Amino acid sequence: MKRDHAYCATLFLAAALFATAVRSQAPDPLPSWNEGRAKQTIMAFVRSTTAKAASTYVPPAERIATFDNDGTLWAEQPVYFQLLFALDRVKALAPRHPEWKTKEPFASLLKGDLKKALAGGDKAIAEIVMVTHAGMTTEQFEGIVKDWITTATHPKTGRLFTEMVYQPMLEVLAYLRANGFKTFVVSGGGIEFMRPWTETVYGIPPGQVVGSSIKTKYERRDGKPVLVRLPAIDFIDDKAGKPVGINSHIGRRPVAAFGNSDGDRQMLEWTQGGGGGRLMMLVHHDDAAREWAYGPKSKIGTFSNSLMAEAKEQGWIVISMKHDWKRVFAFER
Amino acid sequence: MKRDHAYCATLFLAAALFATAVRSQAPDPLPSWNEGRAKQTIMAFVRSTTAKAASTYVPPAERIATFDNDGTLWAEQPVYFQLLFALDRVKALAPRHPEWKTKEPFASLLKGDLKKALAGGDKAIAEIVMVTHAGMTTEQFEGIVKDWITTATHPKTGRLFTEMVYQPMLEVLAYLRANGFKTFVVSGGGIEFMRPWTETVYGIPPGQVVGSSIKTKYERRDGKPVLVRLPAIDFIDDKAGKPVGINSHIGRRPVAAFGNSDGDRQMLEWTQGGGGGRLMMLVHHDDAAREWAYGPKSKIGTFSNSLMAEAKEQGWIVISMKHDWKRVFAFER
Repeated sequence: MKRDHAYCATLFLAAALFATAVRSQAPDPLPSWNEGRAKQTIMAFVRSTTAKAASTYVPPAERIATFDNDGTLWAEQPVYFQLLFALDRVKALAPRHPEWKTKEPFASLLKGDLKKALAGGDKAIAEIVMVTHAGMTTEQFEGIVKDWITTATHPKTGRLFTEMVYQPMLEVLAYLRANGFKTFVVSGGGIEFMRPWTETVYGIPPGQVVGSSIKTKYERRDGKPVLVRLPAIDFIDDKAGKPVGINSHIGRRPVAAFGNSDGDRQMLEWTQGGGGGRLMMLVHHDDAAREWAYGPKSKIGTFSNSLMAEAKEQGWIVISMKHDWKRVFAFER
Repeated sequence: MKRDHAYCATLFLAAALFATAVRSQAPDPLPSWNEGRAKQTIMAFVRSTTAKAASTYVPPAERIATFDNDGTLWAEQPVYFQLLFALDRVKALAPRHPEWKTKEPFASLLKGDLKKALAGGDKAIAEIVMVTHAGMTTEQFEGIVKDWITTATHPKTGRLFTEMVYQPMLEVLAYLRANGFKTFVVSGGGIEFMRPWTETVYGIPPGQVVGSSIKTKYERRDGKPVLVRLPAIDFIDDKAGKPVGINSHIGRRPVAAFGNSDGDRQMLEWTQGGGGGRLMMLVHHDDAAREWAYGPKSKIGTFSNSLMAEAKEQGWIVISMKHDWKRVFAFER
């Protein structure tokens, strides 16, 4: 019997050694990142927050990582994709609204003159959003978004919008989750515009999506309980609204936050304010060849000089798309 | 070598058989429940939603169970515990507010005349809530709640309020989670009053707590980013507000919902409206000996006759504390 025991023990030991060997040759979790400060910082952050002996150790329940969406997880040029969704909806709804032929901003929109349509500024945008996002039940809206997101294509690349996501950021999401982090979207975009597809595309379930919202009302229609979407703003999850939205939905301060514009400044400040092991990063769009290059002067995804100054002063890492990313989109090559 | 292999295989087989035997003799997951319709319904629901072959199967991502708090997970008599918290805060803050000596509802409160203090109705309650829940940062408020919840005691039982939780419901929470359900609190109570202790007491983390809220504002104090609690209602998570709160925070319709009063009616309707395998239950307080007995005439936790009628018509299970629960509180016996 002794020999048998020894044999089994040897077998087990060999298996354990093999497992260790495999682990130490683990594949690079961030293969689309070039070697450099950005990649090193992410990996050092994960090591320092998950090693139990480290002074910067973060218990699993507190491993919260938040990601802006537009310009951080997926592209946002030539305009926010949700605006393109709204424009498509205006076209689809036009036959039911003959009055739009002479009423701005719809008249210009339907003629294809986006510039003139948006000349009305925030008021024009709000009008477009309300007629396209309110007046139906939450289930109906979910269906409309699912239809659009699986069929509409990007005006420049001809790709589905869900293909316009950044491969290096998908790797960061997966890497953090593999290390016990809970990943959240915290976006100025509409919460119910994102939820129908974030789980499939980012691996982030609806309950981990924070965004801007319009009011909803519970009622019965034909005896069935529904939530009706009302033409009234409930919450704007942008700038100083981001820490408010995080507190309301997550109830815990993030230890890692990723953004790309002035709209993310307060989220990064709020994250850093918690002290201990923290990671604050900003995606900088400086790659006109593979994506777009824009910064302080862009109305979409403004990355102001004062944000850049704060990033430097606070030690936030600015990710250069051009230099830090081996590949931007999965469909490249 | 052959004999060695056979020996190892036998060892493994024995271990596997042992594991199966242990499993088939699994301990009762609901030991504080008497055998009966309520317990049977809960167990049948779990079996029917987790058995892959069942037509009522629910994939893990959609296993959402929501629980009201006051009167469903913990007691709510003689008044909601959060009101007792507010009264204690009024006493603690009184030295800083000499004007309260002559100003209602504070004057009566400080004299111990709760009835006269609350004679002002909702307006009086709102005033008490605002002076005790607003005007500090979210971190300060969390500290105040933690202090109170670990020291204040129930006026009748002398127990900590976190001991006034229902043992049978703790077992339901654990049983559902063991079967892949995600459990949420959906309460009319304050979201930031509950979050500091729900993880320890119910095993429910802050991000899975939905409740009423006041507005918060992001600002810098002494160079540090903070969220300040403002004296303005943000959202009331009660009655028709519960489906709204669920949609906003969870983004998925529950498949199981537990309540105990008219405030939970719409949450149960919304849950049932999704179709498929569903579980709707109401705790009925009919045990004056071990807890309290109250129903349609109670101002706290009203269980109206029309709610009882709807429960019968819709097939919602009414849990009799007296008959269905072997034990109400863990501290019994």
